[in-house]
Amino acid sequence: MTKKVLTRPLLQINLNAVKENYQFLKTLCAPAECSAVVKNNAYGLGVREIVTALKNVGCKTFWTAHAHEGAEIRALIPDCDIIVLQGPCQDTIQLFQDYHLIPVINTLDQLEYWEANKTDNAKPFVLHIDTGLNRYGLRTNDIKRLSSQLNRLNDLYMVISHLACADDNGHFMNNYQQKQFTELCACLPKVKKSLSASDGAFLGNEFSYDMVRLGAALFGINTAPYRENQMKNVISIQAPVLQIEELPLGQYCGYGAAYRAHTTRRLAVISIGYGDGIPCSLRNVGWVWFQDKNDMYYEARITGRISMDIITCDITDIPRGVVQTGTQASLVNERYTVDDLGRDAGTIGYEVISRLGKRFKRVYLD
Amino acid sequence: MTKKVLTRPLLQINLNAVKENYQFLKTLCAPAECSAVVKNNAYGLGVREIVTALKNVGCKTFWTAHAHEGAEIRALIPDCDIIVLQGPCQDTIQLFQDYHLIPVINTLDQLEYWEANKTDNAKPFVLHIDTGLNRYGLRTNDIKRLSSQLNRLNDLYMVISHLACADDNGHFMNNYQQKQFTELCACLPKVKKSLSASDGAFLGNEFSYDMVRLGAALFGINTAPYRENQMKNVISIQAPVLQIEELPLGQYCGYGAAYRAHTTRRLAVISIGYGDGIPCSLRNVGWVWFQDKNDMYYEARITGRISMDIITCDITDIPRGVVQTGTQASLVNERYTVDDLGRDAGTIGYEVISRLGKRFKRVYLD
Repeated sequence: MTKKVLTRPLLQINLNAVKENYQFLKTLCAPAECSAVVKNNAYGLGVREIVTALKNVGCKTFWTAHAHEGAEIRALIPDCDIIVLQGPCQDTIQLFQDYHLIPVINTLDQLEYWEANKTDNAKPFVLHIDTGLNRYGLRTNDIKRLSSQLNRLNDLYMVISHLACADDNGHFMNNYQQKQFTELCACLPKVKKSLSASDGAFLGNEFSYDMVRLGAALFGINTAPYRENQMKNVISIQAPVLQIEELPLGQYCGYGAAYRAHTTRRLAVISIGYGDGIPCSLRNVGWVWFQDKNDMYYEARITGRISMDIITCDITDIPRGVVQTGTQASLVNERYTVDDLGRDAGTIGYEVISRLGKRFKRVYLD
Repeated sequence: MTKKVLTRPLLQINLNAVKENYQFLKTLCAPAECSAVVKNNAYGLGVREIVTALKNVGCKTFWTAHAHEGAEIRALIPDCDIIVLQGPCQDTIQLFQDYHLIPVINTLDQLEYWEANKTDNAKPFVLHIDTGLNRYGLRTNDIKRLSSQLNRLNDLYMVISHLACADDNGHFMNNYQQKQFTELCACLPKVKKSLSASDGAFLGNEFSYDMVRLGAALFGINTAPYRENQMKNVISIQAPVLQIEELPLGQYCGYGAAYRAHTTRRLAVISIGYGDGIPCSLRNVGWVWFQDKNDMYYEARITGRISMDIITCDITDIPRGVVQTGTQASLVNERYTVDDLGRDAGTIGYEVISRLGKRFKRVYLD
């Protein structure tokens, strides 16, 4: 075994691609401000590195879901706007004050709570109104009620809503929600408006208003899947081959004997599993990729179930020599992105990246 | 809003239940030693807390997948055996020495590498032989070859193998692998033997040999699903209700408009999502649980897609007053365990716990 053999899977995150994606979307959405959504540890990719990279290309506004996520960003960047989507509650109100976080107010109850508990030097707030997603946010009746209590909106900084079907440019909900948004905003004071996230950014400028909230697209996900992906790939995942063996005709592989060799096969054992975030639903359907020294790509089907630390794949049809013990297998790359892996796993790229494991050796390219 | 409202989801891990599960399995598997598998941050539950709890009930041997995981445990417990399943490789060999880790040797290549690179005071090693799982481990030919080179096995500490179908007590693979294991061990020096993980522990004493490697069952998972779960529940997941709203007839809820109200419904918005580890595959099929002050349980179906930070559920049929803003919804509890959630999500409880998110407020009960 002279070849260098590793056992730890490798997650590479290309910060240059994140920055290029930001620049691309900034041009696309101009003159709207492009803010960044970095909740859940920047979709699992590392909030410190992502926020720093985006700050360096001029991003000034960051969104998180929870207040403690916002506090973490404030430690990195003293002079940006940090907006917290989940809004203030009894165990986070102090964080809003200490870290100068901007609250999103999603219900009349929450507005009342904020009014009663905010400090004198509190930041102005963002109002989240629902336009058809029917998730979190003020409903039409709430807005009508507020429109007759305009003194409660003296500190209003921005009005936002969120699109339900913006990844489908032909969906009737898009125009419906956009019209609703414009109409409901007309009942409220004239402040900044924001409707679109990454997917809305591709729907045309009438969806961009004053600010677009960019998340998934920054990280390479195709949020406009009705056309070729315009984003640079950000993520690559590799894991080493631990062993190569023949699986004789009629024998089984992995838990539940879920794969059976109908002819004698050659299998490679790879050092990555669902504990690292490879979804179990890729059993018998996922792909692993190998590259030879001439940059030829070869595909190998995942055989049997995904284990916590290991997968096996079928390399029978790959020329001998390409795959050896120690060879790095690729699970996500420029050709087979997290969108592809998500689709094959019956889910979305968003879930794939948000649920990657902690055991990777993480390398940031910049 | 006088009621205390929180926004952060809560993960409670009952260390007493882990300890009781260990004691139960120890009795079940006696006289075999009961070791613990704590790879991948103890299946996602926190390696420090789990290892400390198990040490306190007498567990002396711990298994990890990777060497850096083993090093973390050594810092907690100076005097236990730590066995590393993935075995030594070029970037971890130093860890084996520095932290006195016991390597598992899975291939002849790996044995050769260990022989050439181990230090004089290196720990004895474990040999992993394959008996039909056809994943990682020495094949029959390798073992036959070794049986004529017994001098290479002077430092052999234990022989292990792993069962493919032990969660199905009627599966033919169980007896086949057990017979194979006994036969192959007979070619090797007489040392300790270990075949079973949590699922094998329930197959009868002839599967237990000298050591059982307990993982999932310690954490409450039913690894013998052909009978009622014998394990105490370890995990509970709760998240607060952020908002309650009517969804009028004909309106949609969530991304992709994936839920439509065919009668007017009452929905609760809950502060948890796939970013916290709630699988996207629970869209429109998962359950959320509420409890009234008389401990009555009520179920609410998840409506529409799972968002990164939010789910919605249908509380129309739950008596008014039970669910309010701020009420804690339960996603995993004693009645609806991670096995149940895994089944409804089309996966296994193992994947659910191993991929829980980082945003929880984590509370350890002891």
